[in-house]
Amino acid sequence: MEPVRTLSQMVSRLRLSNKRRRVAVVCPNDPHTEYVIIRSLREEIAEYLLVTDEEHIDISKSLYAASPDFVRIYTAPTPDDAAALAVELVRSGEADVLMKGLINTDNLLRAVLHKERGLLPPGGILSHVAVAQIPLYHKLLFFSDAAVIPKPTLEQFRAMIVNDIKICNRLGMEEPRVALIHCSEKVNAKFPHTICYTELKKEALEGKMGKVYIDGPMDAKTACDAHSGEIKGMSSPVIGNADIMIFPNIESGNTFYKTLSLFGDANMAGMLTGTIAPVVVPSRSDSGNSKYYSLVLACLAGK
Amino acid sequence: MEPVRTLSQMVSRLRLSNKRRRVAVVCPNDPHTEYVIIRSLREEIAEYLLVTDEEHIDISKSLYAASPDFVRIYTAPTPDDAAALAVELVRSGEADVLMKGLINTDNLLRAVLHKERGLLPPGGILSHVAVAQIPLYHKLLFFSDAAVIPKPTLEQFRAMIVNDIKICNRLGMEEPRVALIHCSEKVNAKFPHTICYTELKKEALEGKMGKVYIDGPMDAKTACDAHSGEIKGMSSPVIGNADIMIFPNIESGNTFYKTLSLFGDANMAGMLTGTIAPVVVPSRSDSGNSKYYSLVLACLAGK
Repeated sequence: MEPVRTLSQMVSRLRLSNKRRRVAVVCPNDPHTEYVIIRSLREEIAEYLLVTDEEHIDISKSLYAASPDFVRIYTAPTPDDAAALAVELVRSGEADVLMKGLINTDNLLRAVLHKERGLLPPGGILSHVAVAQIPLYHKLLFFSDAAVIPKPTLEQFRAMIVNDIKICNRLGMEEPRVALIHCSEKVNAKFPHTICYTELKKEALEGKMGKVYIDGPMDAKTACDAHSGEIKGMSSPVIGNADIMIFPNIESGNTFYKTLSLFGDANMAGMLTGTIAPVVVPSRSDSGNSKYYSLVLACLAGK
Repeated sequence: MEPVRTLSQMVSRLRLSNKRRRVAVVCPNDPHTEYVIIRSLREEIAEYLLVTDEEHIDISKSLYAASPDFVRIYTAPTPDDAAALAVELVRSGEADVLMKGLINTDNLLRAVLHKERGLLPPGGILSHVAVAQIPLYHKLLFFSDAAVIPKPTLEQFRAMIVNDIKICNRLGMEEPRVALIHCSEKVNAKFPHTICYTELKKEALEGKMGKVYIDGPMDAKTACDAHSGEIKGMSSPVIGNADIMIFPNIESGNTFYKTLSLFGDANMAGMLTGTIAPVVVPSRSDSGNSKYYSLVLACLAGK
């Protein structure tokens, strides 16, 4: 399978599979969520299980009226109940993907992370993965964590990498190249994440992470620009050619996301992973396009 | 004075002052440093005190031959001695700016930070300031710290802000807008820098930082994009219109620098501040342009 190189190729790949993914939406009561639903129905890539409260049911009804074969409506007394019901639809195998509508992210996550009735398998680690299509880069760039894990431990770093590799594999990248980001290439005990990086590289060399190249610490430019590596006398399969960037903390991951989106003219998508099914939690300031591609990413990454 | 809006306006501003700045260079023995010296001599904005070892003196001699009125040569047995001598030239008032050539940054900083014979005043705090000219932003954007302070304390945040405000004032921004960066707008004790931000805003409101607007925590996009603020119901003189961005740690500051430079098609400049005179320490992977503008920034920021 040729690797997917652009966000619109993700859509083509999904269409080629000839199988609509079943998406449970919690409170599809805002224009952005509606837009994503309508566009994906038109593209014939998804069908919907809309979980809404009675107050906002009209929106769901109009979506149903437009595509009665591919929309079902469930009602719940409150947004929290809607979240619990949508999570249950995923747990019971009736939905492949969970998507957030007009509900507070914290409330949705409470249902997702519920110990007995949530979506995280025992010992699982929730993390965020984003993907950027950047005019000045030659392929899609995946990165973690811009949104969920503040300061990863070794175990969390490992989970983020494993989660991201799985998604890359799904998109046809058989041996993804993972850059472990820092502000320089020096391992330094003052920066504990650089010590984690050494351990992670060792595990990868021992084959514990499957088919993958892992290198670092290196700065964000060296990861994506071979010339920067050359100047520093560094070369590896990862330098200048990263598929995945792992950031040392949420502040740097979030800065990368926001800077690409604002100044890099990039199209972005993102989702939560580590759960038994992908969870789409768009940011308020994401564009409609970005929210749509987030759903597409989740549909591809799921079953 | 109209504020400077672009990097080339910085050059014009310097030329208009009709006063060449005196720059002491430690080991001007590499092509990039030579390029910066030749270009600034041609632009008539600087004169040079070149401190070299005997082994590489030919490069300095050829620079002297081309501009004998504006180049003086000093020799020192080793790069460390050259650094000490160049620092002394700044301390004695013979040079306005210190610039790094082919010497290890750590070795140069040892001379700059020397307790008795260095450039840091008592109680002073060394920090890095960068400035970016970004095609998708309407003015110059200053930020700290991409290179020196790993995880600022309250005192270091305060020093970074004060240092950056001074430079903005020099460039005609009378009331700079400072955005305190985090991954969200929430103050949260789990992220100690957000607590510092609250204190810094209070101090600014009490007038302790002079004429300035300070706001945060906010993410990097909200600082530079009013629309992102609107979506979140946030508005202030800073949101969408930052002159200065203060990052919570070196990993995020460095990521911003590298991402803008690689994917934002931005021209960058940077220097060290907090010292009695600006210090130019270009990164190996900076472009020639970027190194030249770093010198220009330092010349404008100095006496």
